[in-house]
Amino acid sequence: MNDTAMTTKKVAVIGTGVIGNGWIARFLATGFEVTAFDPANGAEAKSRQNVSDAWSAIEETGMTEDADQSKLSFAPTIEEAVKGAVLIQENVPERSELKQNVLAEIDRHADTEAMIGSSTSGIIPTELQMKLQHPERFFVSHPFNPVYLLPLVELVGGKQTDRGVLEKAKEFFAALKMKPLIIEKEVEGHVADRLMEALWREALHLVNDGVATTKEIDDAITYGAGLRWAQFGPFMTFHLAGGDQGMRHMLEQFGPALQLPWTKLEAPQLTDELKERVITGCESHADGRSVAELEEKRNEFLVKLLRLVEEYRV
Amino acid sequence: MNDTAMTTKKVAVIGTGVIGNGWIARFLATGFEVTAFDPANGAEAKSRQNVSDAWSAIEETGMTEDADQSKLSFAPTIEEAVKGAVLIQENVPERSELKQNVLAEIDRHADTEAMIGSSTSGIIPTELQMKLQHPERFFVSHPFNPVYLLPLVELVGGKQTDRGVLEKAKEFFAALKMKPLIIEKEVEGHVADRLMEALWREALHLVNDGVATTKEIDDAITYGAGLRWAQFGPFMTFHLAGGDQGMRHMLEQFGPALQLPWTKLEAPQLTDELKERVITGCESHADGRSVAELEEKRNEFLVKLLRLVEEYRV
Repeated sequence: MNDTAMTTKKVAVIGTGVIGNGWIARFLATGFEVTAFDPANGAEAKSRQNVSDAWSAIEETGMTEDADQSKLSFAPTIEEAVKGAVLIQENVPERSELKQNVLAEIDRHADTEAMIGSSTSGIIPTELQMKLQHPERFFVSHPFNPVYLLPLVELVGGKQTDRGVLEKAKEFFAALKMKPLIIEKEVEGHVADRLMEALWREALHLVNDGVATTKEIDDAITYGAGLRWAQFGPFMTFHLAGGDQGMRHMLEQFGPALQLPWTKLEAPQLTDELKERVITGCESHADGRSVAELEEKRNEFLVKLLRLVEEYRV
Repeated sequence: MNDTAMTTKKVAVIGTGVIGNGWIARFLATGFEVTAFDPANGAEAKSRQNVSDAWSAIEETGMTEDADQSKLSFAPTIEEAVKGAVLIQENVPERSELKQNVLAEIDRHADTEAMIGSSTSGIIPTELQMKLQHPERFFVSHPFNPVYLLPLVELVGGKQTDRGVLEKAKEFFAALKMKPLIIEKEVEGHVADRLMEALWREALHLVNDGVATTKEIDDAITYGAGLRWAQFGPFMTFHLAGGDQGMRHMLEQFGPALQLPWTKLEAPQLTDELKERVITGCESHADGRSVAELEEKRNEFLVKLLRLVEEYRV
């Protein structure tokens, strides 16, 4: 029985929006059999289309020999979808009670040895595992869009999560060619989204105050900090900016500026005017190109950038 | 006289720390004659070494035919340094009064037609131009480390700056293969540093609270958001995350989360303990590699990444 369990390559994906479909593509690319469930009309056709759109980018980053788009099937119920799966990945809308109920149903029908992960970007795992009979096998496994290309997955356990399960999940996601990051304390937004959100708030303020347009802010990141962060992240970037003494010198020189009232302390009101400014800013920057066209360009870029990061990351 | 002025390719660099030397390398790479001034012992030798270290990376990103490391000279006074320069770039330490005084001396001796730029990362131009006899030709021209590779330069005028001078500066820096960004309102930290600082504060909180180590945060950026920001910046990244409807859908779906108390509203106290955690985090991540070694690796990476951005940026 153990041998069978070890060789089982079946997962379930519950909820097939952008993130669920991204997971499906990554699982298929690593040779998994995927059973999906989503009650929306046309969900299956959309999934198959998304996987097919993603496939050429995935091929360039490398897939396993048993990768196969046809290993995807849709089940009519959660119960049938989760049967035999070693991992069930939940990706329903970001509402706590909805997720709790869906997870409870997954938990009821999942195999005893199955792991259950949630893609939640903000809710802490202790809250999500409250209604489970087997909360110890539940964790947050939060990926980044496009899931089939970006390697990061944040793994966060709740109060009732078994540490051994987290370690097993880490191995599992590493085998999907991901960079799993176990986060030691559960906080809303985990780590990466908190960082993004901090920058996002300030960006909204700058637009709101008329200091810069959305395109100018994008340019400021692309031609400045973004190029460095892609290789090193914020800390090592500053380590390099400190000269021979690295971060030690940086903190002495720039520490005091931290207390200066540069950034706004609260998020701006999302007024209709600010919304329009942000939306039309992006639309005019996109200049008639559809999101699908931009996504294709993004994928070509990411495939090459990932190779660079692989080669030069320290 | 006008013809001579048009063909003059001479600039002055006042203050030769990391940023001043980065400017020198970029100016030399574009065929400029550079006269530098810095009162520190050994400044000239260090400058020449830095330029020589940077040269191979510059060669790969392309330099003009008249690029020449030997076009660098040091002057014994500011007065002699600025003579005949079309642009004087000030890079002395980030203290308002010191900068005001140095800028006043530059202003006193500079050619009538010369532009004067300051590399200040935080101080607003209206404050810096207060003691100048010709404040209309002064602006902030804030670059990013490494100046000889990163294209972004923020141009900010103060209350007394002539708009025509800003436009002239924009052309000047574009000719240096930079991406000059005129910022319409002066705010402390301009645009890019405010965005960086917002992220930096949150990163320090996460380290301080024991949620993640410096390396984990760097990983979270490198393998997640950083890869996307390098191509698109934060706004277009979200535009793509919104599906077919782009940013319009994004703001409807995620706008409310903005008001959630995810990020910390104030910077943490920079205690000795937090300092040590950040410093040793970086040092252990660097794993014995000197900052110089990391810089070489960074330059190789940036040269290739810049080509990618050039090809795929929208």
